[in-house]
Amino acid sequence: MNTKTAKSNSRTGDLFNRLIRGDWSVFKKLVPGDSDDALDLSSIAQALLSRRGEASGMMLAQRLLDTFETSTQEARLAFFLDLAQNFAADPESLSAAIEQYQQSPGDEALARLGRAVEPRRQELIRRLNHSSGGTHRLIKMRESLQGFLRAHPELAAVDADFLHLFESWFNPGFLEMRRMDWRTPANVLEKLIEYEAVHAVQDWSDLRNRLEPVDRRCFGFFHPQLAEEPLIFVEVALTTEVPSSIQTLLHPEHIPIPAAQASTAVFYSISNTQKGLAGVPFGSFLLKHVIESLQREIPTLNTFVTLSPVPGFARWLGGERAAEKSEMLSEETIEALKVLDDDHWYEDEDKTQGVRAAMLDSARAYFLRARNAKGIVLDPVARFHLRNGAELHQLNFLGDVSPNGLKQSHGLMVNYLYKLRDIERHHEAFVERREIVASKAVLGK
Amino acid sequence: MNTKTAKSNSRTGDLFNRLIRGDWSVFKKLVPGDSDDALDLSSIAQALLSRRGEASGMMLAQRLLDTFETSTQEARLAFFLDLAQNFAADPESLSAAIEQYQQSPGDEALARLGRAVEPRRQELIRRLNHSSGGTHRLIKMRESLQGFLRAHPELAAVDADFLHLFESWFNPGFLEMRRMDWRTPANVLEKLIEYEAVHAVQDWSDLRNRLEPVDRRCFGFFHPQLAEEPLIFVEVALTTEVPSSIQTLLHPEHIPIPAAQASTAVFYSISNTQKGLAGVPFGSFLLKHVIESLQREIPTLNTFVTLSPVPGFARWLGGERAAEKSEMLSEETIEALKVLDDDHWYEDEDKTQGVRAAMLDSARAYFLRARNAKGIVLDPVARFHLRNGAELHQLNFLGDVSPNGLKQSHGLMVNYLYKLRDIERHHEAFVERREIVASKAVLGK
Amino acid sequence: MNTKTAKSNSRTGDLFNRLIRGDWSVFKKLVPGDSDDALDLSSIAQALLSRRGEASGMMLAQRLLDTFETSTQEARLAFFLDLAQNFAADPESLSAAIEQYQQSPGDEALARLGRAVEPRRQELIRRLNHSSGGTHRLIKMRESLQGFLRAHPELAAVDADFLHLFESWFNPGFLEMRRMDWRTPANVLEKLIEYEAVHAVQDWSDLRNRLEPVDRRCFGFFHPQLAEEPLIFVEVALTTEVPSSIQTLLHPEHIPIPAAQASTAVFYSISNTQKGLAGVPFGSFLLKHVIESLQREIPTLNTFVTLSPVPGFARWLGGERAAEKSEMLSEETIEALKVLDDDHWYEDEDKTQGVRAAMLDSARAYFLRARNAKGIVLDPVARFHLRNGAELHQLNFLGDVSPNGLKQSHGLMVNYLYKLRDIERHHEAFVERREIVASKAVLGK
Amino acid sequence: MNTKTAKSNSRTGDLFNRLIRGDWSVFKKLVPGDSDDALDLSSIAQALLSRRGEASGMMLAQRLLDTFETSTQEARLAFFLDLAQNFAADPESLSAAIEQYQQSPGDEALARLGRAVEPRRQELIRRLNHSSGGTHRLIKMRESLQGFLRAHPELAAVDADFLHLFESWFNPGFLEMRRMDWRTPANVLEKLIEYEAVHAVQDWSDLRNRLEPVDRRCFGFFHPQLAEEPLIFVEVALTTEVPSSIQTLLHPEHIPIPAAQASTAVFYSISNTQKGLAGVPFGSFLLKHVIESLQREIPTLNTFVTLSPVPGFARWLGGERAAEKSEMLSEETIEALKVLDDDHWYEDEDKTQGVRAAMLDSARAYFLRARNAKGIVLDPVARFHLRNGAELHQLNFLGDVSPNGLKQSHGLMVNYLYKLRDIERHHEAFVERREIVASKAVLGK
Repeated sequence: MNTKTAKSNSRTGDLFNRLIRGDWSVFKKLVPGDSDDALDLSSIAQALLSRRGEASGMMLAQRLLDTFETSTQEARLAFFLDLAQNFAADPESLSAAIEQYQQSPGDEALARLGRAVEPRRQELIRRLNHSSGGTHRLIKMRESLQGFLRAHPELAAVDADFLHLFESWFNPGFLEMRRMDWRTPANVLEKLIEYEAVHAVQDWSDLRNRLEPVDRRCFGFFHPQLAEEPLIFVEVALTTEVPSSIQTLLHPEHIPIPAAQASTAVFYSISNTQKGLAGVPFGSFLLKHVIESLQREIPTLNTFVTLSPVPGFARWLGGERAAEKSEMLSEETIEALKVLDDDHWYEDEDKTQGVRAAMLDSARAYFLRARNAKGIVLDPVARFHLRNGAELHQLNFLGDVSPNGLKQSHGLMVNYLYKLRDIERHHEAFVERREIVASKAVLGK
Repeated sequence: MNTKTAKSNSRTGDLFNRLIRGDWSVFKKLVPGDSDDALDLSSIAQALLSRRGEASGMMLAQRLLDTFETSTQEARLAFFLDLAQNFAADPESLSAAIEQYQQSPGDEALARLGRAVEPRRQELIRRLNHSSGGTHRLIKMRESLQGFLRAHPELAAVDADFLHLFESWFNPGFLEMRRMDWRTPANVLEKLIEYEAVHAVQDWSDLRNRLEPVDRRCFGFFHPQLAEEPLIFVEVALTTEVPSSIQTLLHPEHIPIPAAQASTAVFYSISNTQKGLAGVPFGSFLLKHVIESLQREIPTLNTFVTLSPVPGFARWLGGERAAEKSEMLSEETIEALKVLDDDHWYEDEDKTQGVRAAMLDSARAYFLRARNAKGIVLDPVARFHLRNGAELHQLNFLGDVSPNGLKQSHGLMVNYLYKLRDIERHHEAFVERREIVASKAVLGK
Repeated sequence: MNTKTAKSNSRTGDLFNRLIRGDWSVFKKLVPGDSDDALDLSSIAQALLSRRGEASGMMLAQRLLDTFETSTQEARLAFFLDLAQNFAADPESLSAAIEQYQQSPGDEALARLGRAVEPRRQELIRRLNHSSGGTHRLIKMRESLQGFLRAHPELAAVDADFLHLFESWFNPGFLEMRRMDWRTPANVLEKLIEYEAVHAVQDWSDLRNRLEPVDRRCFGFFHPQLAEEPLIFVEVALTTEVPSSIQTLLHPEHIPIPAAQASTAVFYSISNTQKGLAGVPFGSFLLKHVIESLQREIPTLNTFVTLSPVPGFARWLGGERAAEKSEMLSEETIEALKVLDDDHWYEDEDKTQGVRAAMLDSARAYFLRARNAKGIVLDPVARFHLRNGAELHQLNFLGDVSPNGLKQSHGLMVNYLYKLRDIERHHEAFVERREIVASKAVLGK
Repeated sequence: MNTKTAKSNSRTGDLFNRLIRGDWSVFKKLVPGDSDDALDLSSIAQALLSRRGEASGMMLAQRLLDTFETSTQEARLAFFLDLAQNFAADPESLSAAIEQYQQSPGDEALARLGRAVEPRRQELIRRLNHSSGGTHRLIKMRESLQGFLRAHPELAAVDADFLHLFESWFNPGFLEMRRMDWRTPANVLEKLIEYEAVHAVQDWSDLRNRLEPVDRRCFGFFHPQLAEEPLIFVEVALTTEVPSSIQTLLHPEHIPIPAAQASTAVFYSISNTQKGLAGVPFGSFLLKHVIESLQREIPTLNTFVTLSPVPGFARWLGGERAAEKSEMLSEETIEALKVLDDDHWYEDEDKTQGVRAAMLDSARAYFLRARNAKGIVLDPVARFHLRNGAELHQLNFLGDVSPNGLKQSHGLMVNYLYKLRDIERHHEAFVERREIVASKAVLGK
């Protein structure tokens, strides 16, 4: 144990003695923003990891979280930095464990090495979780941490420890899929309005329009500790054909069809809600659960398809058009695309007819040929669905003429198709060989 | 990767190809008990950890658990041994990671080392948990594993991996304390009858007697994935004084007192239910939650006390009496104890009066002076409560005259007292200095 | 208003003034059993019906029910008699209303007549129902009333008022059918043990045997105000054929069949639970709901049948055998029936074979030809099912060899068959023409 | 039975035979709006009351309600008129029952008379209630009926029968009080927006403002058969003093106080939701339940008060001002009130100060002296609260400056105070002596 830790422990000892006498005033006296704040968070953290933590753990955990949540940004940063520096694995124990393993590499040595390499932060996070509401508060703590990551890359190790535990705690086996509809409590529904990331919900009337009609569904994953907000949710429309326009699909005067008449389930929006759970994979599991559940509910469904944005398209296209010589697009195409610079081109039938073919050619290039440095398809939404085993099924010119849709993809949307019996094969093609599985229509055959 | 794994992987590949074509018959064809069974479990395990596992993970996990549960003991053992041998950390990756760490011991090297030292089994167990009902089935799998541990100590590493994950998954933050009473579903209540480990529940009428009166309580910890059985539960009686006899406390014709008249909450039985969760600590958390909850419900309560068995007493006393010369007990005491050899001594007033003092002296010796090789108090129940910060409060001669009570402790019971403001101090005294905190009455002062 | 009422009102006034000053002691002072008790109940009743009842109704209702429940039998009887005498329709108002109606028989006169003829007790009962738990307490009050009916036929009018309101309150539209199984709260399940009226439940293990197997069902009607006990419940076995013996059906070692393999649902017990609801018809509605619900759950079911006792058979047969000359049974039959006087005849194969034909002939006579004074079939269970539109389907010799079964029907049981498309026709045949609809097998054709 | 009924019965018989053969087409064939529609409704009604109704009642009830709900206004009216004419008490049976009663007026004759006077409609309505969802549909049916009452006063008897049954079915003993807050399902909350009758809810944000802050409450009565909408609800604000302005109370930037700091519960809005339940009294019971519940929840509350509109004030004041000579108001007052004719007078400090005294004097006259033909206070809201036993506590000048508030009462609001120990006395004062109980402040003493 290095000197710094020893010293902070000594301070902890003092604080701790007052604390166990019930003298919480010691904390309250400290002026918010006072530079000692960070030390306080660290002191409580040390106490929580100490032997006394066993007896009064829940109280200490509560206190640390309370203090953290009322701390300044400076104090939080100092605490995170302290976690990075002083709550890592102990170098001496680790060296000793390595040495023992190298001398006699049996199970026991491995186990010791495993324990020695685990950062002490992980046990700290586990103990913080003992307190009531701890899980949600830890998610918020990581959200706070992520705000510092760019400026302080040394905090990445702390972030990795949060993620490691969250992946274990939010194992799909612990999640419950629930349908949300117009009977769902208002405090849950307002989360949908808040978190919808793809096609913003305008107001409660728009929300109702997405939940109440008999041909609409919404499903989310819930964790028992966060009963009032979904971790992720997907919005679904039941239709008789693969849709090509989000504005048509969500039209306020849309006339519902009976669910039993639907052949197609359209996933038109999927949104994560907790920034603090970034990196924990939910989407793929949710889609598979929803497909399974819909098949049981509505046996007539035979097509499961998305209506998806193409968030990287406009930027990429801008690059190609700005390049001296595009390797992806022909000169004619680039010429035709000039119309995109006109205001309101998408409302002018002549202009849209003129640019349609060029746009779809560009889209094909974007999906089928353009690749990033690692040789993977550029579009993040495409990466998600193709990795899940879906097929790029259809390109939709002017599929989203909202300001956001025009800005990010000149209105382009696409459908990804989930064919259950091909999912595994497509997944492997993408993961192992980076192949883009696409329909004949998209391939232009 | 050693040759064996490679070979089994190749076999896996073949099986797997048939499997993804939906040809599950390959498994069904195998005769139960056939020596290939184990290989099958291992094959599915390999597939589940492979790249394909991402796409068809839930199906594979389901299959592995189904197969395991219908396998013979031989097949299960073979599978566990395979987990020990072939699903540990990969030695080569580990050596490489160690080397890198020793050369440049930064965060990145530490992270890589952490990943390399983690047995592949852990990821396997996490993926098995994806399947529906997986958590409970994994607990049962570990229960099965524990049956092999004595004969196969090399499986200890596998057991440690289960325990590591279970400690994370069953973090107290994820448990819900629920009261059980006579309105609780029958299928939950029958678990109480099944699992009560301290004072057996005779029948439903006995159970009702422990749950329905207004001066009785029962609380358990539940995990969302095991909604129909408590992981641990504690039975409580509300009284006006510290009780000294379990037969009196549980008398079928006991007349209930209004809860608001009670001053004392007596924890007279605490039972774990899942063998497969052995080593995951619940008891201390449950007691603290229950105390907190009872304080809120019944503000008149001022004493929280157990009525506990002394399971190691009779054996220890037998040793002392058999010894040529006891260092713990005086000759007079040993002489007086001879009456314990008489049949039905406890029903004879003369005999009980004659042995009472000797018994209590022996009990003092047992608790206050006798120690095991590590210098710790012998009695396991005492260790649990003293570690939690309780005080050894009262010795109860003839506190339990059931056959079991007489056999394990010649009828002796004790009370441990939980004083909230002393818990931390007592806990430290015991953990750091191995002190037995006892009341003046017990100390004989 | 007659003198008696006036006087009691005056007394009420006095009591009431003290009561509204919060002086409840006036009631408490009265010695239980004191002859004034009845007056007290009546006084509160008068207050509750008075103008003041509007403001303090719930308090008065509570008080009346509390007082009633702690009153002696004498006091209760006095109260009921007072209800009969002094809380009927007011004769003067009624005469006036009749007169008006006879002079000008319009809607208004009719309405006034309707109000005048309604006993004041009905409004009293309605107001008692305002208090918390009032519905259940009123049911218990009627149960108490029924104990006096035989000795005091003048209370029949009071009983009729309870029944009139209960029929309205327990309209099938307000009842909820719920399945009860092994997950049902224990306090509800113990009601099944308590109330099972046909084939007594021995203990919790017997109960579990009737609820938990996958081929057993139990359904009850619940009223929102009595959430913890069914008003009526029916026990169902799923089988592959029409059963002929209750002991076989309920055999403890019975091996369950998957529900999806069942063709037949057997209603083998139907029990009312609330004596205070006697006369309110639930059974027919419950059976129809259960049939509908089972058809939805298990589409393979094609036969809905009872296995029913024949409670009046042994008594009737005794009469025929004792008669000098039976008009129903032949001499041979009567001769053959003598074996029934032997102990344990039903365990002797020779004897059972000898009496079988005579017994079945007698049963045919009992069901098909014997009639009561009103010309209706004698057996009460038969009346219930035939009125519901069922068909007498099968006679089962030695269908119930329990002591009770032997005593009431020499072991005879029968099946009634519910064919949905014939129910209406059978119902009319029975109700309008007193026809017994029976299968060819029963008719002996 | 008159000829018309006989004929319609004969027709019924024919229809009914086809109906029990499953030939529902007979109904469907009829063109909507066809004049036979009404006959159909009546035919089903006749069938439902016939003997067959016992067996196939639920099906017939369902059918009648389905048909009614898709009928034209003409068909509905014809049906209601038929109910009035042909489903009343049978005159012959009634005459016979009267005769019997007059000859021997015992219990039996009374009972027969009671049965004879009951319109057959009542049994019809009870049987309609057997069908699933029947209760709610009957409420809607009465709502439809009420639309015809003014033009067809002969339907009043039919309406009275609905009301008679609804009063029994919606007895307070069957209602459940529930708190509604921001966790309440959205489909229930939107009913609050729809039905709020006093101070309109602008949008979801306004609704949230009334439900979510810790110093706001909303309670409603629910009936088990209408689980998704309250029958009546009251909105409550917790404050530290009696409020005098609704705009201040509902200010969007209102800063909540902790409930434990509140001394006063303010009922600022109470709304019925079901027109079809008009005449069934809920309000008084709800207020008393809410007061009781709030007292338990927040023991510091000592004042229960309304903030109420004065809906009849402006109209009455207009009358006084228009009269040649007001008997209620002095000439000075009338002179001062002229400012009310100015636009936006309430925003001009001089004008408001000038009219204040005259307005309050007028209000005193309106409440304390003005009376309707029956000698009762004019204001309907005052009648409700005074009858409940409240006291007119405070007059609030410019308490509601919304357009509606200015229009109906020139901005005047009042508080009614509920003092539990005086409720009974005040109630009697009002009901028996028509006294207006008012505070000294209001009385001007």
